[in-house]
Amino acid sequence: MAKITVLGAGSWGTALAMVLADNSHEVRLWAHRREHAEKMKETRENEKYLQDVRLPDNIHITDNLEESIDGVEYLLLAVPTKAVRDVCQSLKAHLDQPVTIIHAAKGIEPRTYKRVSEIIKEELPEEKYKSIVVLSGPSHAEEVAMRQPTTVTVSSEKLEAAEEVQELFINKQFRVYTSPDLVGVELGGSLKNIIALGAGISDGLGYGDNAKAALITRGLAEVARLGTSMGANPLTFSGLAGIGDLIVTCTSTHSRNWRAGYKLGKGEDLQKVLDDMGMVVEGVRTTEAAFQMAEEQEIDMPITSGIYHILFEEANPREVVEQLMTRVRRHEMEDLVDVLDQKMKD
Amino acid sequence: MAKITVLGAGSWGTALAMVLADNSHEVRLWAHRREHAEKMKETRENEKYLQDVRLPDNIHITDNLEESIDGVEYLLLAVPTKAVRDVCQSLKAHLDQPVTIIHAAKGIEPRTYKRVSEIIKEELPEEKYKSIVVLSGPSHAEEVAMRQPTTVTVSSEKLEAAEEVQELFINKQFRVYTSPDLVGVELGGSLKNIIALGAGISDGLGYGDNAKAALITRGLAEVARLGTSMGANPLTFSGLAGIGDLIVTCTSTHSRNWRAGYKLGKGEDLQKVLDDMGMVVEGVRTTEAAFQMAEEQEIDMPITSGIYHILFEEANPREVVEQLMTRVRRHEMEDLVDVLDQKMKD
Repeated sequence: MAKITVLGAGSWGTALAMVLADNSHEVRLWAHRREHAEKMKETRENEKYLQDVRLPDNIHITDNLEESIDGVEYLLLAVPTKAVRDVCQSLKAHLDQPVTIIHAAKGIEPRTYKRVSEIIKEELPEEKYKSIVVLSGPSHAEEVAMRQPTTVTVSSEKLEAAEEVQELFINKQFRVYTSPDLVGVELGGSLKNIIALGAGISDGLGYGDNAKAALITRGLAEVARLGTSMGANPLTFSGLAGIGDLIVTCTSTHSRNWRAGYKLGKGEDLQKVLDDMGMVVEGVRTTEAAFQMAEEQEIDMPITSGIYHILFEEANPREVVEQLMTRVRRHEMEDLVDVLDQKMKD
Repeated sequence: MAKITVLGAGSWGTALAMVLADNSHEVRLWAHRREHAEKMKETRENEKYLQDVRLPDNIHITDNLEESIDGVEYLLLAVPTKAVRDVCQSLKAHLDQPVTIIHAAKGIEPRTYKRVSEIIKEELPEEKYKSIVVLSGPSHAEEVAMRQPTTVTVSSEKLEAAEEVQELFINKQFRVYTSPDLVGVELGGSLKNIIALGAGISDGLGYGDNAKAALITRGLAEVARLGTSMGANPLTFSGLAGIGDLIVTCTSTHSRNWRAGYKLGKGEDLQKVLDDMGMVVEGVRTTEAAFQMAEEQEIDMPITSGIYHILFEEANPREVVEQLMTRVRRHEMEDLVDVLDQKMKD
């Protein structure tokens, strides 16, 4: 039985806390806002982010960060990417013992192009953590909370740390696999949100499943191209944290990135969409980061560019999608072959 | 303007004939059954397979095979895989000039393990055809008939033949890419139907999107493994004819393979499901072929085996899916790495 604190009581943090509680660990769930914590304590539900699910009794809820991390062995960061630096600053001030840090955030920082594990390393002194493990994969929180069968991937620079975390989470319906490719697992989960926005835009415009499948396929090829240039193993994009997560995000109305794209496709403007969502849409900032990187490194990412122009430069979604469909490229394998060539050179 | 005959007036043959007619070619559409041809002539619709779509006036409909192929330059075979040998026998008897054969069938023959282009080569004397081209990709016929944006891949042993066929079909909303990997394009479209049956079974059992995404991801890895052993380029499975077609087939209620799986998941037996469908479910015979090949070549295909046992040995769908979810394999990359190793050796 391990002592674990989950930082962040959104839908994903709460669902993961439930898995850990089901496995009889000592689980604390920290919520940023006092009212949110109080409401959850009172109702034993997380009505705002995860409807109709009863929180197991062995989850201790708090909004006191210092208390929540006292004596724990594992910290699970389930906060939006842009909150990671702040949370790490608080941990730096209050964490007395070295812990294993697990993170479940799916984003890349604009301008710095940092992955979440890199941000954590930058913000936390080495003596505060034993290792950093990412947890990612095709996993709607709503289904995890309902104990529906789910698979995820964990990865770390140290395989033993990933295996330890695998042990913490694995149970009959929550299956956990390890991967040696930390960079790829972090990037797969992050970059797929760009394509999810695109899939939503396509659906919002009223295009069909054929168009969406083309967009997902071509999108995966281009994010794999960027990911490979950032050090990922291209094969990771064919796994659970790549294509698996992409499929679940692009084809389900549970996905907030897809939903945001859908509204954009329907003609709403970005600020209104984000205001109405009430949840962080990671894909927006990740699109910005990927677009900047692609420009800098001269990587061909037509879908990402198109989405960037829709998000930040008021490009017309229908015109962007039509341009993408009628591009001159005629041999499908061109960029797939690029990826393989790249891999062969490594 | 080319002279093209489409053999087979199911949903896909009819939709492809419409694309060709939109491109102003001289199109004949041959239906196997006289009543079907008569009804289509009379109503200018294909009510049985493609509701609410008006056939363009420049499609000539017939049930006379000899007349339909007289003087044509291209033949498009859009019949079920198991009808290909019979159709080729008729062509052998009646075809007077060498033609380019395009096929759009997505199956593998049990016992012989032949792809459709191999079956055609076996049945037709060399002087009857110039080349054989496969057309595949994520393309519900219903959406193609509605002129929704769609992408497909064409491939042939001769690149020029693939490029010729690309020219025939390409237009603003129907985008055609070429691929050099004939084997991969044929196998991608065929093997994906196994996974579509599995996705339908998972949905029919009431599992969620997380489980289905896992099944699709793991399924793609195993069909890529089999495909690679049959001579396909593993990267083709990451393209339109692989993952693209897989996504569209596994996540849309248009798909007859998915629908058949869904009914199996709901507890109906195979014969009843097939009788009720009234259309050929290619995935059933392809599962049989893939299972036989995997056994012979000792290739690990747990998902395909599970589906085979459900289809042909009355295995309980729920037990099969639960076994798949709780398999002992713990490192996700194991079989992805196998595929890459294989590629590196080639």
